Amino acid sequence: MIAGTAIALLPLTLASGALAAGTTAAEKEQKAASKNVIVLIGDGMGPAQVSAGRTFSKNKLGKDHLELDSYFVGQATTYADRGEDGGTIVSGEVTDSASAGTAFATGNKTYNAAISVSNEDVSKPFASVIEASELAGKATGLVTTARITHATPAVYASHVRNRDNESAIASQYLNDGNVDVLFGGGKQFFLSKEEKGKRTDKTIIPDFEKEGYKVVYDKQGLASLDGKTGKALGLFGNSHVDYVLDRTNTVPNLAEMTSKAIDILSTNPKGFTMMVEGGRIDHAGHANDLPSVVQEMLDFDAAVKVAMEFAKKDGNTSVVVTADHETGGLSLSRDNIYEINVDAWDDQQKSSELIGGELKNAKTIEDVKALVAKYTGHTDLTDDEAKFILAGDGSSYKQEGAFNAVMSKRYLVGWSGHGHSAVDVGVWAYGPIAEKVKGQIDNTEIARAVASVAGIDLKAATDKLQSEYVYPKFKITREGAVLYPARALAETLGAQVKWNGDSREVVLSAGGSNLSVNIDTQAAALNGQASGFQANIDNNVLYLPLEAFNKLTGKNLTWDALSERIKLK
Amino acid sequence: MIAGTAIALLPLTLASGALAAGTTAAEKEQKAASKNVIVLIGDGMGPAQVSAGRTFSKNKLGKDHLELDSYFVGQATTYADRGEDGGTIVSGEVTDSASAGTAFATGNKTYNAAISVSNEDVSKPFASVIEASELAGKATGLVTTARITHATPAVYASHVRNRDNESAIASQYLNDGNVDVLFGGGKQFFLSKEEKGKRTDKTIIPDFEKEGYKVVYDKQGLASLDGKTGKALGLFGNSHVDYVLDRTNTVPNLAEMTSKAIDILSTNPKGFTMMVEGGRIDHAGHANDLPSVVQEMLDFDAAVKVAMEFAKKDGNTSVVVTADHETGGLSLSRDNIYEINVDAWDDQQKSSELIGGELKNAKTIEDVKALVAKYTGHTDLTDDEAKFILAGDGSSYKQEGAFNAVMSKRYLVGWSGHGHSAVDVGVWAYGPIAEKVKGQIDNTEIARAVASVAGIDLKAATDKLQSEYVYPKFKITREGAVLYPARALAETLGAQVKWNGDSREVVLSAGGSNLSVNIDTQAAALNGQASGFQANIDNNVLYLPLEAFNKLTGKNLTWDALSERIKLK
Repeated sequence: MIAGTAIALLPLTLASGALAAGTTAAEKEQKAASKNVIVLIGDGMGPAQVSAGRTFSKNKLGKDHLELDSYFVGQATTYADRGEDGGTIVSGEVTDSASAGTAFATGNKTYNAAISVSNEDVSKPFASVIEASELAGKATGLVTTARITHATPAVYASHVRNRDNESAIASQYLNDGNVDVLFGGGKQFFLSKEEKGKRTDKTIIPDFEKEGYKVVYDKQGLASLDGKTGKALGLFGNSHVDYVLDRTNTVPNLAEMTSKAIDILSTNPKGFTMMVEGGRIDHAGHANDLPSVVQEMLDFDAAVKVAMEFAKKDGNTSVVVTADHETGGLSLSRDNIYEINVDAWDDQQKSSELIGGELKNAKTIEDVKALVAKYTGHTDLTDDEAKFILAGDGSSYKQEGAFNAVMSKRYLVGWSGHGHSAVDVGVWAYGPIAEKVKGQIDNTEIARAVASVAGIDLKAATDKLQSEYVYPKFKITREGAVLYPARALAETLGAQVKWNGDSREVVLSAGGSNLSVNIDTQAAALNGQASGFQANIDNNVLYLPLEAFNKLTGKNLTWDALSERIKLK
Repeated sequence: MIAGTAIALLPLTLASGALAAGTTAAEKEQKAASKNVIVLIGDGMGPAQVSAGRTFSKNKLGKDHLELDSYFVGQATTYADRGEDGGTIVSGEVTDSASAGTAFATGNKTYNAAISVSNEDVSKPFASVIEASELAGKATGLVTTARITHATPAVYASHVRNRDNESAIASQYLNDGNVDVLFGGGKQFFLSKEEKGKRTDKTIIPDFEKEGYKVVYDKQGLASLDGKTGKALGLFGNSHVDYVLDRTNTVPNLAEMTSKAIDILSTNPKGFTMMVEGGRIDHAGHANDLPSVVQEMLDFDAAVKVAMEFAKKDGNTSVVVTADHETGGLSLSRDNIYEINVDAWDDQQKSSELIGGELKNAKTIEDVKALVAKYTGHTDLTDDEAKFILAGDGSSYKQEGAFNAVMSKRYLVGWSGHGHSAVDVGVWAYGPIAEKVKGQIDNTEIARAVASVAGIDLKAATDKLQSEYVYPKFKITREGAVLYPARALAETLGAQVKWNGDSREVVLSAGGSNLSVNIDTQAAALNGQASGFQANIDNNVLYLPLEAFNKLTGKNLTWDALSERIKLK
């Protein structure tokens, strides 16, 4: 069942001490390889979210275990690299999806908000297991219920300093990427503002079609795809795919997307690597919407089932499941009461996002009571509860947050806020990868485990990317000029940087040339000649334009304004 | 390294399909057995408590992993049996330590508060792995930083309907138990009221000495014990052993207790079974005292290290570590901030229990500010914070709870209340037991795994106990008579119970005798003759005195008033 190609990619030396008696080195090698790898990420799926899903399933659906449960093998730390913004710590022990995603997609820690770039003033790109799989000729896919340009899919096939730059992420999928299947929401980042999208340049869907992508927008479109499709872009929502509780029959669920992606990708004789994200467990956690957390958990769990069934049938597939972090600080109990009110967890008929949209227009506590009764059947809302909902919870979630606070008290669950938390997350696995991710691990080990069983070379893929782009901090002047931190960029480019205290000059030198900048006058001289380069000092950091670096180094660096990166060649 | 005895106790048939090629059935059997088993329980040690301990260790102690971490193998569900008290649900998804302890000590679910008895009107005792080990001739030990009569140790060597009956638990250790080493707090349940204890009968320490126990009370006493000690009772606190933050040098830590217990128990040629509890992670969690949670976690982790080092050196020992439940609904982040303030986690110099004791006497906000500054170095308490502490948090934790609420905001951690929560807990293991407790399990599987590797017979031990005692619900009349639920007890004793609608009588029959009670007059007749038994109907339940059951069945049942149980023979 093991393809020759996959084996050929693996190193053939092994310490003999690692081998059980009666097992040959070749047998052991075969066991540690998988032609296909499926990574499933429950975004925001901390330990309590998993327990909540199982408890609901047991009490309300008569099924006492999750599909996940049979595959539990370990847990992972999730911490981010320490990152600071203007002296304020913006990341550290508590990760966001971008930093955690970079860790398990590429094997590297970084700062919160970073999409597969390093934690430096001039960041370097890190290749993901999807990008390394493309280099190995495998098929690749990204599937999510969030926007396809959201952090978790983005870390697998794009590189930007800031996750919010979703237009650039969509463009990188088109221009740099070679991902065969992209299923999720986020149509708005593929459409121009004129077409009610978010892009300031143009609608890029025709460009995807030109690249051979079949583009579909709904459940029926998804169903029309098959193993012969080749490349497919499925955009099942303008922003995120609707919550389970709000879906109509035109919106596919995560299991359907996963199943179709497998149909398409599994036709590649070299195998495939795919990431599937349950993206909205996190969103429901942020909002503190417990019923949606549970439903999104079960939607994700159904996708896990699809992946596991394929893996078992196929016999040459590894599956690994984890979360990026916990969201909301969920606790299954509250207020000193030794029980949770799971009986009420399906009273709520729609997501709090939808209900909150209507609560925003409520004018009186009677309006609030009527809406809560309509959507939850709870007709006993007190005046105090209704008043609180009307006023909002003081966070950006406003009425929706207050509604969830009131309902969570009734569900007997607690939340510590609307952000993420630093608890370890579970790891589940099937196939040869299981041995590599079991026990207490760090989330970066998941990337290395995927690369190892898939027989792909993360380092080679990273070297290639790093020869092409760097991702600097930068500033834009009032006149629209883009300036870069001089020392950091010069050193990245291999130039020397010195400080001449006598002349009060910063001197950059490379290959016989030198560029000096007087920090009082900000006059810049190239090899002793006035250069006219616009220099700028901000918070003790000297900034220079790209032209200065090109002249100094003789390179032809160019600026990709959309992706906010420097093209090195 | 495997003792012949341990192997002999194991079944010798195995499905051959379960065997790897080249491994004989006998080899496989050997692998699955351990002469010694050490169970370590972190009380209240949920996933966030573990992550908190590791984060503190990494950031403040320069050690990036817990001792535990190398042994992570799975996680366990913890739910209790549904229990009701007067129509109010008192247990279900959220367990207490008694119910969870009964599960992992005996392999049976029960209601909250039950100490190793079943969830019935007339409860039956369940034998623990400690009791089954005693029957197998092994040495046994219970070690804890809580009171030795507290729920977690109690479930291993006593049986009562209500965990609060700690005097009975101490007496059962003396009379029914045969535990060789008992180390913990709780001296008060061994002392009469006259000697400042809690017992209404008498001081029972001399009775322990008569049974051969060496009794010690402090670190020096503990140090005086050795492998030749035989039996030892260490009572290192009147109530619980002091928190780590409050300990003086006369109080042993958990690692020292564990190490000494191993010294004593490991002299038994048939091996030993021991339970070690980090009992105060839970107490700190209840109070929401994060710094104490962390310190108690590390104290427990050091005991894990002792156990693991012994197991590795010994080569014939299994170790399993888990928690009974999470306590406090701890979240590592709060208030929408993506960071935890771990730098401040060691500002607090004493437990909140100790600080709270002083805050109780504060009269003004200046008093509060002075105490907080004294114990934490935080001199910037606002008037609002001080006012809140002065008033208390509205829970039974009062000023201590309010102090912890204020400090937790500064530590950037959240809590959902002062109770337990229903999240799954981690499982860590070393030795042959690891294979039996890995993955997603229920906490009852831990008891079965211990029994299996130790080669002990839980069922035989349970059968023996159930032939000796039952634990009925009961009521005491104003005159002091004890009455029992007629139907439940009769059926437990094998009698028939019928309702005669014509005569409006409940009729109990056994072995040719019958006892009829008219439910209107409550007159009770034995074989047609007025019996004079005092009958009582309460909430539609008929109660009768023990004499009635003795006369009906010809048995000689007696009532053990201290342990609230009926002796069957």
